[in-house]
Amino acid sequence: MFIWFLTSHDDVGWLKTIDQYYVGSNNSIQGACVENILDSVIMSLRRDPNRKFVFAEMVFFHRWWERQNPEIQKEVRKLVDAGQLEFVNGGWCMHDEAATHYIDMIDQTTLGHQLIKNQFNKTPRAGWQIDPFGHSAVQAYLLGVELGFDSIHFARIDYQDREKRQEDKSLEVIWQGSRTFGSSSQIFANAFPVHYSPPNGFSFEVNTDFNPVQDDPLLFDFNVEIRVNDFINSAMIQANVTRTNHIMWTMGDDFQYQYAESWFKQMDKLIHYVNKDGRVNALYSTPSMYADAKRAASESWPLKTDDYFPYAISANTYFTGFFTSRPTFKRYIRMLSGYYLAARQIEFLIGRRSAGPNTYSLSDALGIAQHHDAVSGTSRLHTTSDYAKRLAIGASEAEITVSSALPCLIDSKLNGQCATPTMTFSQCQLLNISFCPTTEADIPEGKSLVVVAYNPLGWERIDFVRIPVNDHYLVVKDSMGKIIESQYVELDNATRNMRSFYVEAYIGISPKEAPKYWLFFQASVPPLGWNTYFISKASRKGNSKSVYVSLVDHPKNETIVIGPGNLKLSFSSASGQLKRMFNSKSGIDMPVQQSYHWYASSEEAESSDAYHFRPNASTPQVVSRSVPLKVTRGPLVHEVHQQFNSWVYQIIRVFKDKEHAEVEFTIGPIPTENTVGKEIITRVTTNMSTEKVFYTDSNGRDFLKRVRDYRADWPLAVTQPIAGNYYPINLGIFIEDMKSELSVLVDRATGGSSINDGEIELMLHRRIIKDDTGGLVEPLDELICVNGTCEGLTIRGNYYMSINERGTGSRWRRTTGQEIYSPLLLAFSHENAQNWKSSHLTKATAMDANYSLPLNVALITLQELVDGSVLLRIAHLYEAGEDVEYSSLAKVELKKMFAGKTLKALKETSLSANQDKSEMKRTTWEVEDQNGSDPDPIRGGPVDMSTLIVELGPMEIRTFLLRF
Amino acid sequence: MFIWFLTSHDDVGWLKTIDQYYVGSNNSIQGACVENILDSVIMSLRRDPNRKFVFAEMVFFHRWWERQNPEIQKEVRKLVDAGQLEFVNGGWCMHDEAATHYIDMIDQTTLGHQLIKNQFNKTPRAGWQIDPFGHSAVQAYLLGVELGFDSIHFARIDYQDREKRQEDKSLEVIWQGSRTFGSSSQIFANAFPVHYSPPNGFSFEVNTDFNPVQDDPLLFDFNVEIRVNDFINSAMIQANVTRTNHIMWTMGDDFQYQYAESWFKQMDKLIHYVNKDGRVNALYSTPSMYADAKRAASESWPLKTDDYFPYAISANTYFTGFFTSRPTFKRYIRMLSGYYLAARQIEFLIGRRSAGPNTYSLSDALGIAQHHDAVSGTSRLHTTSDYAKRLAIGASEAEITVSSALPCLIDSKLNGQCATPTMTFSQCQLLNISFCPTTEADIPEGKSLVVVAYNPLGWERIDFVRIPVNDHYLVVKDSMGKIIESQYVELDNATRNMRSFYVEAYIGISPKEAPKYWLFFQASVPPLGWNTYFISKASRKGNSKSVYVSLVDHPKNETIVIGPGNLKLSFSSASGQLKRMFNSKSGIDMPVQQSYHWYASSEEAESSDAYHFRPNASTPQVVSRSVPLKVTRGPLVHEVHQQFNSWVYQIIRVFKDKEHAEVEFTIGPIPTENTVGKEIITRVTTNMSTEKVFYTDSNGRDFLKRVRDYRADWPLAVTQPIAGNYYPINLGIFIEDMKSELSVLVDRATGGSSINDGEIELMLHRRIIKDDTGGLVEPLDELICVNGTCEGLTIRGNYYMSINERGTGSRWRRTTGQEIYSPLLLAFSHENAQNWKSSHLTKATAMDANYSLPLNVALITLQELVDGSVLLRIAHLYEAGEDVEYSSLAKVELKKMFAGKTLKALKETSLSANQDKSEMKRTTWEVEDQNGSDPDPIRGGPVDMSTLIVELGPMEIRTFLLRF
Repeated sequence: MFIWFLTSHDDVGWLKTIDQYYVGSNNSIQGACVENILDSVIMSLRRDPNRKFVFAEMVFFHRWWERQNPEIQKEVRKLVDAGQLEFVNGGWCMHDEAATHYIDMIDQTTLGHQLIKNQFNKTPRAGWQIDPFGHSAVQAYLLGVELGFDSIHFARIDYQDREKRQEDKSLEVIWQGSRTFGSSSQIFANAFPVHYSPPNGFSFEVNTDFNPVQDDPLLFDFNVEIRVNDFINSAMIQANVTRTNHIMWTMGDDFQYQYAESWFKQMDKLIHYVNKDGRVNALYSTPSMYADAKRAASESWPLKTDDYFPYAISANTYFTGFFTSRPTFKRYIRMLSGYYLAARQIEFLIGRRSAGPNTYSLSDALGIAQHHDAVSGTSRLHTTSDYAKRLAIGASEAEITVSSALPCLIDSKLNGQCATPTMTFSQCQLLNISFCPTTEADIPEGKSLVVVAYNPLGWERIDFVRIPVNDHYLVVKDSMGKIIESQYVELDNATRNMRSFYVEAYIGISPKEAPKYWLFFQASVPPLGWNTYFISKASRKGNSKSVYVSLVDHPKNETIVIGPGNLKLSFSSASGQLKRMFNSKSGIDMPVQQSYHWYASSEEAESSDAYHFRPNASTPQVVSRSVPLKVTRGPLVHEVHQQFNSWVYQIIRVFKDKEHAEVEFTIGPIPTENTVGKEIITRVTTNMSTEKVFYTDSNGRDFLKRVRDYRADWPLAVTQPIAGNYYPINLGIFIEDMKSELSVLVDRATGGSSINDGEIELMLHRRIIKDDTGGLVEPLDELICVNGTCEGLTIRGNYYMSINERGTGSRWRRTTGQEIYSPLLLAFSHENAQNWKSSHLTKATAMDANYSLPLNVALITLQELVDGSVLLRIAHLYEAGEDVEYSSLAKVELKKMFAGKTLKALKETSLSANQDKSEMKRTTWEVEDQNGSDPDPIRGGPVDMSTLIVELGPMEIRTFLLRF
Repeated sequence: MFIWFLTSHDDVGWLKTIDQYYVGSNNSIQGACVENILDSVIMSLRRDPNRKFVFAEMVFFHRWWERQNPEIQKEVRKLVDAGQLEFVNGGWCMHDEAATHYIDMIDQTTLGHQLIKNQFNKTPRAGWQIDPFGHSAVQAYLLGVELGFDSIHFARIDYQDREKRQEDKSLEVIWQGSRTFGSSSQIFANAFPVHYSPPNGFSFEVNTDFNPVQDDPLLFDFNVEIRVNDFINSAMIQANVTRTNHIMWTMGDDFQYQYAESWFKQMDKLIHYVNKDGRVNALYSTPSMYADAKRAASESWPLKTDDYFPYAISANTYFTGFFTSRPTFKRYIRMLSGYYLAARQIEFLIGRRSAGPNTYSLSDALGIAQHHDAVSGTSRLHTTSDYAKRLAIGASEAEITVSSALPCLIDSKLNGQCATPTMTFSQCQLLNISFCPTTEADIPEGKSLVVVAYNPLGWERIDFVRIPVNDHYLVVKDSMGKIIESQYVELDNATRNMRSFYVEAYIGISPKEAPKYWLFFQASVPPLGWNTYFISKASRKGNSKSVYVSLVDHPKNETIVIGPGNLKLSFSSASGQLKRMFNSKSGIDMPVQQSYHWYASSEEAESSDAYHFRPNASTPQVVSRSVPLKVTRGPLVHEVHQQFNSWVYQIIRVFKDKEHAEVEFTIGPIPTENTVGKEIITRVTTNMSTEKVFYTDSNGRDFLKRVRDYRADWPLAVTQPIAGNYYPINLGIFIEDMKSELSVLVDRATGGSSINDGEIELMLHRRIIKDDTGGLVEPLDELICVNGTCEGLTIRGNYYMSINERGTGSRWRRTTGQEIYSPLLLAFSHENAQNWKSSHLTKATAMDANYSLPLNVALITLQELVDGSVLLRIAHLYEAGEDVEYSSLAKVELKKMFAGKTLKALKETSLSANQDKSEMKRTTWEVEDQNGSDPDPIRGGPVDMSTLIVELGPMEIRTFLLRF
C-alpha cells in the first residue's frame, strides 16, 4: 500500500484579513502567518530534495514572491521545476462554489494561472477545493476539466453521503459535472474520508501537541515502533474505504507549516521508519502524482453527476445559510463583477494603461472576494469590511479608468486614442438608493445632462434608465436630438430613508435632501457600444406630452391590474396580495401569490449562523397577510408600492416591452426581539403541480434538477425539511408543470428552494444574534453605524419573475440573466448638447455596425493583458436540449466583432489561457457499470484562420489569446 | 542611546521533562521544542551575519550538537567564531542558587564549559542566571569571577529592592559576593528592570499575538512609524532607570525562537527603522558585549555585597517555600553528589574506563538536577520523577563503576590495575531505611561479611557504621583481626514501616521481613583511603563483651540524661521534651528545647505552593507538647526515640567521641484534613539573646549574617513575618550570643530562619493540596504509590546540633559539614576473611601513608577527564577571620598527596578548567562612594614546580589540570 503525503490551505481572509494572515498580525484571533509558511517551506524543501509541498492560493504566493530577492526566486524556480513545489488549483484564492458566479470563478483562476505561467511556465493539473462547503457541477467540468485539471480533491461532502461512500468505497469517483458534455468531460474527484487534516495524531505544527517520532535511543521515550504502528493502523482504516493501493494523507490544515521543518522532520522520520517496516510505503507526493497513480491502477470508478449540494456535517448543521449570508456584500461583488467585465472592455477599446489607472486592483479585489469565506459571507465582520474596502479601492480605480477612457472612446476626432482626456464622467454606484449628485443637480444654463449608456453585451439592448432628479420639467432627447418618452415617479419614503442613512454610512458624506423624482426613460444601445441621451429643461409653457408624471391610482375595484405591456399582474385591493400573472402574448394565465415570511432561527446549540441554516420550525411566520398598496402608472412603467411591515418594503415594477415583473425589496433593520435570529424569505406561490421538482443554476450557468427531500446518490434521511432542501442560486430558480414555467431570477447569490409544490422560495436576508458555532465566534449581526448610531443592516435588491409556456422559459432566463449580470454602464456629465454632438460619436458600436453576437452567445471576457495580447472568452448560453432553437451550434465572426482592428494572431487556449488548447489532454477514466456511451456533444470545430469564425456548441466556452 | 538585543532561556525540565522539551513532545502542557530552537536559530543566523544569539543550557546544546552532521557543525563553529552565537553561563543547566551545593554548581558548570572548550575553544564571559529565584553570594564570586565572568545578568530580585533600585538607578551594581575576597573579587551584576522578556509588545514568537512591523506600503496596516515610536517609548522608560547610554533588551523568554525567523525578521526591521529614525540606536548584541560597553562608559556603580535572598514578587509571594520543596528529592541529589565525589576518586585511582561503566551518566544526571526547577523542587511531579530516574541510572552505573573498581584498588597483587574484577561489592543505597540484602543475609559458613569503608576526605576519619542485621551473635573485627566494640539496637517500628512500603515503591522489590537490629561499630579510615571490617558469627557460648545489645531505659527520674561522651542531653521524663545540652569538655551548658510544629498554608489566592511559602498565621501549630520517650543506651551510642504524633517520629543519637547530637526525623504522611497545606518545621529553642541575628550558609560555603525583618539594601516593609525571614540552607545555620553558639547542620537543602531570638527553625517537609499559582499548575502533593495504594510522602533525614563557645563553632561546622557531605562509602561482600586478608590491602591510603590534608582544606574534585588529564580542586574551608587558627594560609603537598604517582605536568586553571589561570583577567570596576580600600585577602602564591606545594588562602579554591 502506498501513502501519499501532501497538504496545505491558507484562507484568503476569514477570522483575520488577508494581510493580517500574510504578515501574521492579529494572532490573538488566530495564529497564522503565511509569510512564515512560505519562508520556512522553501527552506525545508531546499534541505532535502525528497520533500514536496503544494500551494494553492496564489494571492498569498504573489505577495510573498514579489518580496523575495532574485536568489530566493531562483531557488524557488528550481524547486518548482524539480516538482518539489507544486501549485494546485492555482487561482487567486480557493473560491467558493455556492455563492460565486462562473465568470468570477474563471477570472480569479485566470489571475493565478497567469502568474504561474509567467513566472514558472507551469500549468496546474489538480483542483484543490479542500475547504469549500459543498461542490458545484460547474467546478467539475468548467473550473476543472476546462482548465486542464485531471483531478479535483475536496473534504466537504454531506455526512450521509460520506457514510454511504465509505461503505461502498465510492469516495473517489469520476465526476461528470455537465449534462451537456456528459462523458466527454470527466474529472477524477477525490472526496477525503474524514477531513483535510492528517489522521489523528499526525499533525506536526510547531508549538502544538503531538507525539514526535523519538528515534534516538540515547534520549528517553523512544517510540519508533509505537509511531510506526499508529501510522499503519491509521493507513489501514483509510485503506478500508479506498479503492486501489493508494491512499492520500493530507499532511496539513489551515495555516499549518508556519515552521515547516516541524512537519518535515516528523514526516521524514515516518517515511523512513514506515518504509523500513515495509508493511506500507509512504512518500511525499502531490495531488497530480496521486491522480496519476490512481489512473495507472486500472481500476474502474463510480460515476458521479450533478453536484455536492447541500452540504451538512450532521443532522442539524446544513451549510445552507451562507447561500444568503451578508446579502449586501454578495450584491456588491456581483455588481462589481459586471462592472469589471464592462470596464475591461472599455479599457481594451482604448488601450490598457500599464502605469494605471487600470482595472488590475479591481481584478485583485474581486479575485480575493471569491474566496470561500469571502463572498460566502462567512468571514468576520472586520474581514468582510476589509474585502469591501479592497473592492471599493479597486472599483474606484476602475471607475477612474472608465471615466477617463469613455471620453477618448466616444470622441469622434480621436478615434479611441487619447492620452489625457479633457473631461471626465461621473458614475453613480449608489444609484439604487437615489444618490447621484450629477443627475440631482440643477442643469446649468445652456447645458444638458449628458447620459452615456455603454452596453457590454454582444447584442443590441433596449433597457430602462432610472435616475434621481429634482426637476420634473425635463425632457429627454436621444442621440439624434429627438425627444423620447420619459416618466417621473415620486421618490418613496423607503428610498428617502435609506439614502439619508446609507450614503453617509458608505461614503461618509451626509447627503443633501433627497431628490423628488425618479426619471425613467428607455435606452436603446448597440452591442459592445454606446448611446447618448441629453436631458434638458423643458420650456415651462407647454408640457411635452412625452414627459409623464405618474398617476397615483386609488383603487376602487376589487381587483387591480397593472402592466403597460403584455404582462399583467392583478392584485386584490382588499388584501393587497398579488393574485395572478397573465401574459397576453403567450396566453399564460397563472394564479400567483407573493409574500414575505421569516424563519425564527433555532435556539438549539447547533443553530443558524453565518454558515448554517436551522429554523426552529418548518413553517415560517408570515410578515403580513394583508398589505395596503399604492399604484403608480405611466407609459413606461407601472409600480405597486407595498409596505408589508415596518421593515419590509416592496415595489413591483412592470415595464413596457418587458415580459417580467421586477420586484424591488427593501428589508431591514430586522428586529430581533423574542428570537435569536430571523431569516427572511419571499415566496412566490402557484397551484402548479410540480411534484417536488425544481431547478436551480450551478454558479449562474447550468440548471440542475432538484427534488425535494431526495438525493440521487443515497437514500436521504430527512432531518431538516427546510434547510436540507435549500440550494445555492446565482442566476435563478424555476418550476414547471405540464403547461407552464414560473421562473425567478436573482441579482446576487441567494439561497432558495421549493418547499411546497408550485412554490418558489428565496432567502433574502438574515440576522442572527446568537453566537456562531461554526468557528466564526461572532454572530451574523450586521450593524451599520453613522456617528455612533448603529442599526441592523437594511438591504435592497431585485428579483425578477416571469411566466412562460413550458419549454420556453429558458430564453427569458438566459437573456434576462445576462442583462441582470451586465447592466448598462451609465456615465453622466453636464455639457452643451450641440458642442457635444459635433465632437462625439453619440451612438456607436466597437463591432461591425451591422453585427451582433448570436442571442445564444455571450461575450464573457474581453481584456487586454499586461503583455498587450487580448484575452477573449465567448460562451454559449444554452445547455443541450434547453431550447429548441438556441441549443445549437452558434457562430461568432471575429472579423465583424473586431471591425476596425486587424487580428494578427489567434491562439485557442485552456479556460485560464495558460496552455494551448491543442496541447491539453482530455483524460478519460474507466467508469463502473457503464452501459453504452452517451452521444457526443456538439462542439465547435477548429477556427479557420481565414474566415475567423468561432463555432460554439451548447454550453461551450472558448478562450482565445489574440494579437491585433 | 544604544539598545542591545539578546536572549534566551530553556528550562532543563519543568512542566515537561528535559527530553520532552528537547524533542517537543507533550506540547499540550507547554509548547516547547529546543531542537526547533537550535535548528531554526542556526538557519536564521546563517541568513544574516548581523544577527546574534546567546545560548545558555549546554545539556540541550549537547543533545543537539551530537545529532548534527559535520557540515552543520562546521557552520556552527563559524557562527561561534564570528561572535554570532555566544554561549553564556555555559553550564549544563542554569543552576538554582538556593538549593544547590557549591560543589554541584562547580561540577555542572565544568561539564558545560568543557564541552564549549573542546568543541569551540571558547570560554564564556557572562553569567546568565536570568530565571533563578534569588541569587547567591557564591554565585557572584565563585560561579562568576572564578569562572572568568566579568558580568552576571538576572531578572529576579525582590520587588521592594527592584523598586528602590529603579528609583536610584542601582539595578546595575558591582557585586562583591565574598566577604573574604572583598574588592579583589568583583563582578558587574545586571538586574533587569522588569523581567527577562522583551518590553511589552516586542515578543515575536511564532504563532503568538504581536503586532508585526508592517513596512510594505502595498499591504494594508502599514505601521512603521507606530512601531518605531512604541520602541522608543519603551526604550525611554528603561533609560530612565538605567545608568549610561546603554540599555539591554532581552528579546526572548522561556523556549522562544521555536521558529527563530519569526523573531529575527521583526528585529531586523526594528533595527533598520529605529536606526533610520536616529533617536536611539538598536543592535544585536550579547551580554559580554553589553558589559564591555558598560565598562567603556567610565561610569561608577553602586556596590552590592551579600546576596539577593529571599526573593518576593509581591507582598505575599515569597519564594521561600522551594528551599524545602520535595525534600527527598533534594536529599537524593545531595547524597549522590557526595557519592559522585567519592566515585570519581576511585575511578581516578584505578583509571577511568572510557567505554564504561564510568561516572559520566551520573555527572550528566547531577548536572541536570542542579537546574533551578529541578533541585529547587519546582518541577511537575512527572518531571521530578524523570530527574530521579536519570539520577538512578547514573547512580547505578557509578555503583557498578565503584563496585568493580574497588576490588582492583584493594587487591594487593594488582596494585590498582585490573581489567575484569573477579568479584564485586554490593552497596546499599537504602541503608537509611534498613534495606541491605547483603548485611541482612545469614553469613555463610566459613565466610565473613566484609565491609570496606572508603573515606573520600583528605583527613583520617573516625565514624560510625550502622548496618541492619538479623543476627545478634555477630562480632566485628578490624583489618588486623582484632574484635572491636559493636552495639545492637532493635529496629524501630517507624523504620520497619518505611522499609516495607518504600523499598517496594523505590525499587519494585517487596522486601523480606525487616531485620531485627541495627549493628553499630566505629570505623577508622585513612584519608583518601579505605579500611576493612570483618563481621562474623560469634561462638554462641561466650558473648563477647564487645558486642552490646542496647538497654532500653525505662526512665524513673524526672530528668533523663543521655550521651556516652562529652555531650550530654537531658530530657524531662514528664513531657519528654529536651531540656538542656551540656558539653563537659567545653563546659557549655545551655537550656534547649526541641520541637516540631506546622504552619497551615494560607487559603488566600497567593498561597503556599512549590515555590512560595505563605502561612495563614505567624504562629505555627505545635505537633505535641508532651511526648513519650524511649531511651536505649550502649557504649557507642545513646538513642532517644520519640513518636511526636502519628506522623512525626524522631530518634536523637549521641555518639561516643562526637560533639554533636544527630537528630533523625521521620515525617509523614502529612495529613491534610482541615487545611490546604501543612509545612512542617522543627525548632531548637534556647534563651540566647541573639538580637534578630542569625547566620546561614551560601550554597554550603560562606556564612552570611541575616537579620530578622531587615534588609541592608532597602528599608524593608515586612508583609510576611515568617516567610520573609526564611533563607536557604545547604550546610547549616547558627546563632550566637556573647557566650555561646548553637549550630545546626543539615543533610540537604532546607529552608530555615530564626523567627524568635535564641531560636533556630528549619522547614523539613511540606505538603500542599491547593492548586499551585506559580505556574506549575499542580499542587505540591507528593504521593508515593505501591500497587495502586498511594500515600503522602514520608521523609527521613538528619540534622545535627552542636553547642560551642562563641567563636569556636566553625571548626565543628566545617569539619562535620564536610563529613556529612562526604560520608564513608560502604561496600559489602561475603568472603573468607583469611583469604581476603592475604590477597588484599585491608587498610590503605592513596596518599603518602603519613600524610593528611590540613584540616582547613578539602579535596573537592579529583577526577580523570576524558583526555586522561586529571582535574584536581582543593578548597580552603574557612572564611577570613572565621577561626583564629584555621583562617590562615594552608598548604597542600601534592607530592605526598599523590604518593606513588609521578606528576608530569601541572597547570592551574579557572574554576571550570577551561582557561589558564594566568590568562584570566581580573576586571575591576569603579565603585561609587568608595572610601579607601579593604585589605588584600590572603591568597596562595604560584605553585613551585619543584616542591609542588599548593597554598590556599581562606575560602580559596584552586583548580589544576594534572598529568601523571
